[in-house]
Amino acid sequence: MLLELSSLQNPKVKAALKLNDRRERNRSGLFIIEGFRELSRAVAGSVSIQTLFYCPSLFLGSNEPALIEKIRSQGAEVISCHPQVFEKLSYRDRPDGLLAIAVQMKQTLEDLDRALEGVAHPFIVVAEAIEKPGNLGTILRSADAAGVDAVIVCDRCTDIYNPNVVRASVGTLFTLPVVEASSEETLNFLRAKQIRIAAATPSAKEMFTEAQLSQSIAIAVGTEQLGLTKTWMDAADLQVRIPMHGVADSLNVATATTLLLYEVLRQRQERTWM
Amino acid sequence: MLLELSSLQNPKVKAALKLNDRRERNRSGLFIIEGFRELSRAVAGSVSIQTLFYCPSLFLGSNEPALIEKIRSQGAEVISCHPQVFEKLSYRDRPDGLLAIAVQMKQTLEDLDRALEGVAHPFIVVAEAIEKPGNLGTILRSADAAGVDAVIVCDRCTDIYNPNVVRASVGTLFTLPVVEASSEETLNFLRAKQIRIAAATPSAKEMFTEAQLSQSIAIAVGTEQLGLTKTWMDAADLQVRIPMHGVADSLNVATATTLLLYEVLRQRQERTWM
Repeated sequence: MLLELSSLQNPKVKAALKLNDRRERNRSGLFIIEGFRELSRAVAGSVSIQTLFYCPSLFLGSNEPALIEKIRSQGAEVISCHPQVFEKLSYRDRPDGLLAIAVQMKQTLEDLDRALEGVAHPFIVVAEAIEKPGNLGTILRSADAAGVDAVIVCDRCTDIYNPNVVRASVGTLFTLPVVEASSEETLNFLRAKQIRIAAATPSAKEMFTEAQLSQSIAIAVGTEQLGLTKTWMDAADLQVRIPMHGVADSLNVATATTLLLYEVLRQRQERTWM
Repeated sequence: MLLELSSLQNPKVKAALKLNDRRERNRSGLFIIEGFRELSRAVAGSVSIQTLFYCPSLFLGSNEPALIEKIRSQGAEVISCHPQVFEKLSYRDRPDGLLAIAVQMKQTLEDLDRALEGVAHPFIVVAEAIEKPGNLGTILRSADAAGVDAVIVCDRCTDIYNPNVVRASVGTLFTLPVVEASSEETLNFLRAKQIRIAAATPSAKEMFTEAQLSQSIAIAVGTEQLGLTKTWMDAADLQVRIPMHGVADSLNVATATTLLLYEVLRQRQERTWM
């Protein structure tokens, strides 16, 4: 049994805390994964974990020791923490006693190209310059639920390694192919693969439920304030709108994305989905 | 021209800051509305505004003076603030120079009963014990977009007057009938009005796109962690599920709600929606 870490001045604790800062994440290539569910999915997604901090008095279930053992067996340093230290490390109101430093996955469009081999009709989400980590994470969570083949995060405002992206994604970030790339690279990629681009915009004539979305498709969504840039609107093969019956002129970007993803599903599997 | 308020010790500033605390909101019956868009919708929804703080150097557009004048003409005290004071008052990263103290609307089921007179097939959202203000606000924003007749917030965890509810709702809170009530009162109300209750749950057999949702309907959704309570599951006339094709077992509650609301719309207006 290791001794319990009880000092906030410990260099490992300080290193973990620094990773709440984006510049430090960029510099180090590391990030924080917090929570049992998120870490389970990170293990399932073969994310490399360097250091695991845990605090048994905060555990909510009984499966934590098995997960800790698995992470240790894969080469991570495993450190028991005093609750006060853990609560300082935690990004949450109600920490569940597990938090790790992991290596950023950094998947590329080349990786994605390989992953799409044999996929007859790729189903992609393009998220351009989303600002709020909660929205980006929720888009990832919905993309997982809708069974998309990949999410491409273009011209990132929020990095996908932000703790609130990890959290709002409930760890689907680790099991879904997620690539960060420029808009130019992404457009070239989609064109080379002959994947049509559907852009959501209030000015479109065609309703999303009436557009033909069931073939190879990339659903493109843009920033919370301004939607997609001209680059993406010009590149789009089709533009669709979501009906708005109230006083507001748009939906939250993550909810709008989810509607479009499930409409693709509905069209693809109209009679056969389970 | 009024003098500019420049002291953080000013009692009005202190009173406004206190309203970030829920207990103070409950005690006073007041709350904060921040932002041009939100205040415009509050005025449209006849919300009573007591005090308006503004800071011209932070304005983003040119329509602010007209809105300020309108709010002043309705009897509000209007106070120009130094940017430092305004930034202290503001709940946002990028304040837009408008923030007010308003009187809680406190709509009741009796008000809703009157509002539904003449509505042939009421379309209601019931949000039970939602914890995160951002989720509750996003549900309100989607409810507005889908044209629901009302939202009933049951057994509240987050009060609808939380600044993050106001913000995530983009002010639709003020133009939509929103009632806070107990589950018991709400169930009695729905039964008396013969409104069927549809509960979303992963254990349901029926897919949401296959369920009959086009008549009088209340879409009921529950907490982020646990979904609806037994009370609501037992009371539900139908249970529906949303297909999940990935590793996660649920969607974010606001995105799931939005899918259900737009499915109601799709079924109601399959051939006629604009």
